Amino acid sequence: MGLLCIPIILSRVVPTLLLICCGFFVSQARGVRTPQPERSLPFIWPLPKQFSFGNETLSLDPAFSLSGNGAASPIVRDAFERYKGIVFKNGDRFSFLRTLRPVYDITKLSITVHSKSDELQLGVDESYILTVSTANLLSGAGLTIEANTVFGALRGLEEALPHTFSQLCSFDYTTKNVQIHKAPWSIRDKPRFQYRGLMLDTARHYLPVIVIKQIIESMSYAKLNVLHWHIIDEQSFPFEVPTYPNLWKGSYSNWERYTIEDAHEIVNFSKMRGINVMAEVDVPGHAASWGVGYPDLWPSPSCNQPLDVSKKFTFDVLSGILTDMRKIFPFELFHLGGDEVNTDCWTNTSAVHKWLQKKNMTAEDAYEYFVVKAQNIALTKNWSPVNWEETFNTFPTKLHPQTVVHNWLGPGVCPKAVAKGFRCIFSNQGAWYLDHLNVPWEVVYAAEPLEGIHKASEQKLVLGGEVCMWGETADTSDIQQTIWPRAAAAAGFRVCYGKIGKDGRIEKCGCWIRSCKINNYLFPTERLWSPRDYTSGHASEIALQRLQYFRCLLNRRGVAAAPVTNYNARTAPIGPGSCFVQ
Amino acid sequence: MGLLCIPIILSRVVPTLLLICCGFFVSQARGVRTPQPERSLPFIWPLPKQFSFGNETLSLDPAFSLSGNGAASPIVRDAFERYKGIVFKNGDRFSFLRTLRPVYDITKLSITVHSKSDELQLGVDESYILTVSTANLLSGAGLTIEANTVFGALRGLEEALPHTFSQLCSFDYTTKNVQIHKAPWSIRDKPRFQYRGLMLDTARHYLPVIVIKQIIESMSYAKLNVLHWHIIDEQSFPFEVPTYPNLWKGSYSNWERYTIEDAHEIVNFSKMRGINVMAEVDVPGHAASWGVGYPDLWPSPSCNQPLDVSKKFTFDVLSGILTDMRKIFPFELFHLGGDEVNTDCWTNTSAVHKWLQKKNMTAEDAYEYFVVKAQNIALTKNWSPVNWEETFNTFPTKLHPQTVVHNWLGPGVCPKAVAKGFRCIFSNQGAWYLDHLNVPWEVVYAAEPLEGIHKASEQKLVLGGEVCMWGETADTSDIQQTIWPRAAAAAGFRVCYGKIGKDGRIEKCGCWIRSCKINNYLFPTERLWSPRDYTSGHASEIALQRLQYFRCLLNRRGVAAAPVTNYNARTAPIGPGSCFVQ
Repeated sequence: MGLLCIPIILSRVVPTLLLICCGFFVSQARGVRTPQPERSLPFIWPLPKQFSFGNETLSLDPAFSLSGNGAASPIVRDAFERYKGIVFKNGDRFSFLRTLRPVYDITKLSITVHSKSDELQLGVDESYILTVSTANLLSGAGLTIEANTVFGALRGLEEALPHTFSQLCSFDYTTKNVQIHKAPWSIRDKPRFQYRGLMLDTARHYLPVIVIKQIIESMSYAKLNVLHWHIIDEQSFPFEVPTYPNLWKGSYSNWERYTIEDAHEIVNFSKMRGINVMAEVDVPGHAASWGVGYPDLWPSPSCNQPLDVSKKFTFDVLSGILTDMRKIFPFELFHLGGDEVNTDCWTNTSAVHKWLQKKNMTAEDAYEYFVVKAQNIALTKNWSPVNWEETFNTFPTKLHPQTVVHNWLGPGVCPKAVAKGFRCIFSNQGAWYLDHLNVPWEVVYAAEPLEGIHKASEQKLVLGGEVCMWGETADTSDIQQTIWPRAAAAAGFRVCYGKIGKDGRIEKCGCWIRSCKINNYLFPTERLWSPRDYTSGHASEIALQRLQYFRCLLNRRGVAAAPVTNYNARTAPIGPGSCFVQ
Repeated sequence: MGLLCIPIILSRVVPTLLLICCGFFVSQARGVRTPQPERSLPFIWPLPKQFSFGNETLSLDPAFSLSGNGAASPIVRDAFERYKGIVFKNGDRFSFLRTLRPVYDITKLSITVHSKSDELQLGVDESYILTVSTANLLSGAGLTIEANTVFGALRGLEEALPHTFSQLCSFDYTTKNVQIHKAPWSIRDKPRFQYRGLMLDTARHYLPVIVIKQIIESMSYAKLNVLHWHIIDEQSFPFEVPTYPNLWKGSYSNWERYTIEDAHEIVNFSKMRGINVMAEVDVPGHAASWGVGYPDLWPSPSCNQPLDVSKKFTFDVLSGILTDMRKIFPFELFHLGGDEVNTDCWTNTSAVHKWLQKKNMTAEDAYEYFVVKAQNIALTKNWSPVNWEETFNTFPTKLHPQTVVHNWLGPGVCPKAVAKGFRCIFSNQGAWYLDHLNVPWEVVYAAEPLEGIHKASEQKLVLGGEVCMWGETADTSDIQQTIWPRAAAAAGFRVCYGKIGKDGRIEKCGCWIRSCKINNYLFPTERLWSPRDYTSGHASEIALQRLQYFRCLLNRRGVAAAPVTNYNARTAPIGPGSCFVQ
């Protein structure tokens, strides 16, 4: 059963809210299908901060062109061509099959950017204004994006031309035109968090470059903007380090490797999508693979991690890796790991044990010593270090002030970190570890990075959050179905709805802001819901519809996003049916 | 762990066969890795009919160009660019990172085709000769493909430039060059069967066009050459039929549909890869969805399949569908289904029951009547009809002589069909139904289309075989991991090996021919094994290595092929590890 239209009980809003929540009707009953109603409202995913709309439908020319000063940017031009290919997947290639060439309402997209800079760092301005105007006496209909940076223009493009069946801009199977509905449109939007990440693990399974690129491309659809690349771990070292060329002897095979050129390609591909790449070299634990090429890095041949803290060589190698990587990864953050450090191989290996004694260090002191030394190397290279939360939990006063604490063990850590003045990234494993297959989308969705943090000055220190795709059981065959659709539930999946006034405006009820009240009805917004509304049932059902819609959009673009309604991640659809109800 | 080099016991062949079977060494032991030996022999997948090789390594210029009369063909040029992109995924884009530009041995690929025709029908000549020659006094090193048709040239390209880590042509991570090994090479090859199919079901789940194209692309890697498109079924009717435009009201939703343009795109995309598209319109069963747009096609509103045999309208609609489809699908075969026909709705619906009585037909007679009438429509459109085996099992003498019988229920059907002079396609569900997840690759591999058929004249009537990807639990999220790698075990996965004589030739021991004897040792070949050799163990282990290798190749090209060693299909890797051993 697929009734997707939820009436809201408040009588003054029923007529209008029915507009919002009606998507379409499908039925899975065997052989019986309910006729599909007209789509009544743009079903934009995600819903922007502010929008207003009208009532006209405009057609979009498949040959539509790019104009405005944004066209001078290769990043904008490249994105325009990508999205044009997505929207017009049928192209105009078979226009010979039509007898008349239609006249189109909109023939160009004008993009204006206020800054030519294409520097991509934390906090880059990603805001945009998207406008669809109807024809008037002075000019024809128009579609424009205005942004402060080229990266804001990219976010606008994702919104403007999302897909052949977006309700803003959709392919009409009757007229075979791409149509823009409810014109005129005006959308003003910006992200809530500057850091919206996905972590990939290429050590437990090598991910071919083409697969990493497929994943980066799909990130851009959900406006994720940081790829945290956990490159190396215990099981394999797949990365080329020219300064220490034997390191990648620790790769699984001769071919499960990334060259310098591969890494540049990944960084460049990401930048074209407004995505930063934060590399991670996890030390001193999770590093057994380093010793395949350089056995001296092991405390002993039979005790192979953490890295041998007692040797200068260990830090020479680490410094060499970071020196080589500084030429590749321009992002201001560099992740140094520091999680799950079992120091037994230090205390149990006699040479290392002696060194500890000589330095008058406990094993825990040595852990701190290692992390701080590593941080200093990164800092000299003008990086801010990111470390997993154990470092903060164990020696908070010893971490460099520029440290970004990466929470993962559970909730309640970011509040402590920001209270001590550290920046924080939220990845509570109970909600945002994608390798935990029994965490359904509702739990992912409900996780709140600012939970327990009330002061505005402290909230600012939460850079954002990240979903983590650990690779023990995720390889090329199943990784995209494990990442999606749940990553969308964290990334950019909104449940917002609100009353539309006579002037067509919804005030303060977009999804990248706090919850809002209109007519005394509290509307839930992304990850800042009043518990009351979350358990009301309505928000949940609408959230489900929107996530199913977004999942179908991903499928439509060739991304293997799994069915939404299965409890466990990456499980097959239970039987035949429409994408929109599975 | 992970020893992939299997010595053959026969002493005269040990030295040589060690060359063949040594791939590489990997270990999954925690933190311990065995050093990797040199690769010793090209590990071509699949092994061609005849090949000889030498001992030199040649470098291939990333800017290498296409020459020869084959360059006049858009199909050849398009394929050349595709494969060039695959082989040189790193491109020459970052050559600025190297201080010296290398001198390359091979700078062009010469393709010669003897016929300019690009007609693609059953039995098109797909043979090719691939030659890598070393430099001599008269000329430099060269790489050439010679074929009778452009489609043979495509097969040669797949062989010549398979991948960055093919052992014929591989990316060397030390020199960062693409190298061709064991030159000079000479390969002469042709397929064993003219029909090598994959069936897709777009009715149980809609597959977006981009996903169908991804699948077609992956088919070409395994040299599959027929896409059997099972478009419509009980649950949904997703296809545009201009003559009867309400038919696609039976689609799951407004967007889970294929336009005429989509269909043309799929046919064209396939042709560029030498793949024919055989459409299926399954009648009279499996057709409940037709009635959503035209309820008269149902025997009654409460009994909605098979299609109402008593009405002229039913055959008008069928004729309209085939008329519209004839403009789209040029392949000489058209599939009319005819499987699993439960005639209860005919006998239990009074109007139909009366019609049967008037015509003096039993329900089974009416089934035959329907199928034959449908066949006649197809025949008038110059198609040869293909029908599922129940039609042959039920009324063999009434099928048109041009009928191709599509076996699926079990083994032993093609022998009967060819004995009666019918052509046959093998899809024994016990081995080649990919939706049967508990059929491991060994069983897929062991299935033999010519089993039980001994006369050469009858063997010729077996067009080939097809793996079937029914869609009940396969959608965009999991379809490629369900198809691969098992489809390769049917398609083009060989276990051949043989003695290499002093002149470097292996006679008659390629994989697209019958088993062969050399020195009284019987070498297994693809799907024609003597049972003795199959159970010997050796063939199995080498087959496993080769399938793992091919699976990694697929992953490397972005195809989500599942781990080989899991018993059930489409299951996750059990833990961290190399692609080559999972």
